[in-house]
Amino acid sequence: MTLVAHAQSMHFETPLPLQCGASVRAYDLAYETYGTLNADRSNAVLICHALNASHHVAGVYAGQDKSEGWWDTMIGPGKPVDTDRFFVIGVNNLGSCFGSTGPMHLNPDTGRVYGADFPVVTVEDWVDAQARLLDALGIRTLAAVMGGSLGGMQALSWSLRYPERVRHAAVIASAPNLNAENIAFNEVARRAIVTDPDFHGGHFYQHDVVPKRGLRIARMIGHITYLSDDVMNAKFGRDLRRSVGEVAQDDYRYSTQDVEFQIESYLRYQGDKFSEYFDANTYLLITRALDYFDPAREHGGNLAQALAAATAKFLLVSFTTDWRFSPARSREMVKALLDNGRHVSYAEVDAPHGHDAFLLDDPRYLAVVRAWFARIAADSESEPVAAP
Amino acid sequence: MTLVAHAQSMHFETPLPLQCGASVRAYDLAYETYGTLNADRSNAVLICHALNASHHVAGVYAGQDKSEGWWDTMIGPGKPVDTDRFFVIGVNNLGSCFGSTGPMHLNPDTGRVYGADFPVVTVEDWVDAQARLLDALGIRTLAAVMGGSLGGMQALSWSLRYPERVRHAAVIASAPNLNAENIAFNEVARRAIVTDPDFHGGHFYQHDVVPKRGLRIARMIGHITYLSDDVMNAKFGRDLRRSVGEVAQDDYRYSTQDVEFQIESYLRYQGDKFSEYFDANTYLLITRALDYFDPAREHGGNLAQALAAATAKFLLVSFTTDWRFSPARSREMVKALLDNGRHVSYAEVDAPHGHDAFLLDDPRYLAVVRAWFARIAADSESEPVAAP
Repeated sequence: MTLVAHAQSMHFETPLPLQCGASVRAYDLAYETYGTLNADRSNAVLICHALNASHHVAGVYAGQDKSEGWWDTMIGPGKPVDTDRFFVIGVNNLGSCFGSTGPMHLNPDTGRVYGADFPVVTVEDWVDAQARLLDALGIRTLAAVMGGSLGGMQALSWSLRYPERVRHAAVIASAPNLNAENIAFNEVARRAIVTDPDFHGGHFYQHDVVPKRGLRIARMIGHITYLSDDVMNAKFGRDLRRSVGEVAQDDYRYSTQDVEFQIESYLRYQGDKFSEYFDANTYLLITRALDYFDPAREHGGNLAQALAAATAKFLLVSFTTDWRFSPARSREMVKALLDNGRHVSYAEVDAPHGHDAFLLDDPRYLAVVRAWFARIAADSESEPVAAP
Repeated sequence: MTLVAHAQSMHFETPLPLQCGASVRAYDLAYETYGTLNADRSNAVLICHALNASHHVAGVYAGQDKSEGWWDTMIGPGKPVDTDRFFVIGVNNLGSCFGSTGPMHLNPDTGRVYGADFPVVTVEDWVDAQARLLDALGIRTLAAVMGGSLGGMQALSWSLRYPERVRHAAVIASAPNLNAENIAFNEVARRAIVTDPDFHGGHFYQHDVVPKRGLRIARMIGHITYLSDDVMNAKFGRDLRRSVGEVAQDDYRYSTQDVEFQIESYLRYQGDKFSEYFDANTYLLITRALDYFDPAREHGGNLAQALAAATAKFLLVSFTTDWRFSPARSREMVKALLDNGRHVSYAEVDAPHGHDAFLLDDPRYLAVVRAWFARIAADSESEPVAAP
């Protein structure tokens, strides 16, 4: 059965104070829900998105067959996160470019488009905004919060900022902070955008241009780091470009600027596509949110101390070929949680796809998540529930 | 004793035919030599350079204390490649920007600066040009040819194109070809340069501009891939920017465009510096030479078959944390040489510095090279020598 998704939006009038000291005066959050909230409002699952994703997590929009949500392999009727049992919420984060208030919207303080004036938002700010959305939806406690990559950081942050509101947290292909190399890749991508002459200091909207050159480069860099070396070799290797009939060429044409190898063609295509729809200021904001996330920072770098506040039961998953958020980073979190005597399930999935694996339909990975959520459902049904 | 270097140049009037089908009509090669060619001309060692290097391999220029050659840790009096025993030659490759004929020089066919019209040069073309330089210097046979990274590809190519002229070949931190990920990083760097509005299709010289934005991005990407994750974490970690007094800050300032982390400051500095002196067209040419190198290609991908032509004795060295040219790639070459019954020494050095390690003074690495060259020297002294 096809799950049909409906995009919704919630308006908030109360200013949201941010970690940076500024606040967002009034804002909208785009969101979607799937499944039915049960009578005691105990089956809600919040899904947090990563860099290039949105509230459209699962299902398709009516009449648009190809509009699957970004985690449709994971979430839906009978799927690992079963919408026949759980009420699943997807939400687009503040500062993003898929419907929630972001840099391309009007700044109520100036009456002009925010652009680069949109305040810097952090993982913690997003979690606070999401908490208000749950309040508005009448949901006090989450059966689970779940996310991959940057979404996993939000799930972890939920468990720290609102421990009493999170019964379970799934942190997939994530890390307790970015390392120097991660930050370095983000910085190169940002520099490509900021130094694009069409960026105009982040106020390109007024010039009717988009810094597409920079966005293309940013996306190409991102793509390389999402994939493993192995999967790139298997998928592209040193194959030369394909002709119109999709036959790989076998002669070098000796050019520095034309496409010669298939991997070049693939990356250029990905970069072009991305530059057509993604907002440049959003790219800066979201990569910065990644850079800044570091719950151990206030504890002198002691992650175990930082995670002491979390009381949820955890699932962590990592992928062997993920060099962006390597298994070692997940193991750091597992150890820190265990040091606090927390309940943690951990799966290190031997998958060839690199960081992208968390979005793909690896059967072992999906089976782990399915089993974990089945246990949550079973636990919930056996738990005595207070009268509403 | 300080080795004093003197840059020299050799002019060639005979056109050099290139792999791409074009030829370079007349050209100059910048080079340096260190030590003394012995009477039977049997102690010459050719050093081949990588992307961002030149003929200035060792020593300093008179009156310029800080002008050490790029492999000065390796080459000089009493050093692993001992200029008291060997006559060492450094040469700048065609298409480079440090003195040999390249894109910023006049095209004799048009009377205008080559720019993007400089023909695509390959590793094989460089080796052919180097062979002519040796002819001009009266050197028939090399005691050894040696290079790291792209320089290692040239050393390997020497052993295949001119097996009778190479007694020993040292291939350091190199690979028998680039994999998809390597090509991908090169392509992103090239796109950053080519899409910089100041590139002007490669004829920016006529516009009195330099595509510095693109060069900066290219260099930043390169730098990340030269270093290991570990060394970046050890050197920079998540340290925040330093103030004027070089004290690391401890508060986020929440900015998407300003330097926040020390790694960002480092990369920006490297990018800025590089964009001041490196030629954009040279960057395209040299990364393409890397992409194209693939001696197994004409043998249906069979590297053992491709290396059957080599008769030199080999030294291969790789570094455990080099993810750009990983030890696995060196092992492929070792295996292919052994399959042909060749004499191969191989050292896999446990070094933290990533690809950059081949330029650093790791004692175990230097000891391996020292021992290998000492044996070459000893072998040469004990070999009967034909009268000149």
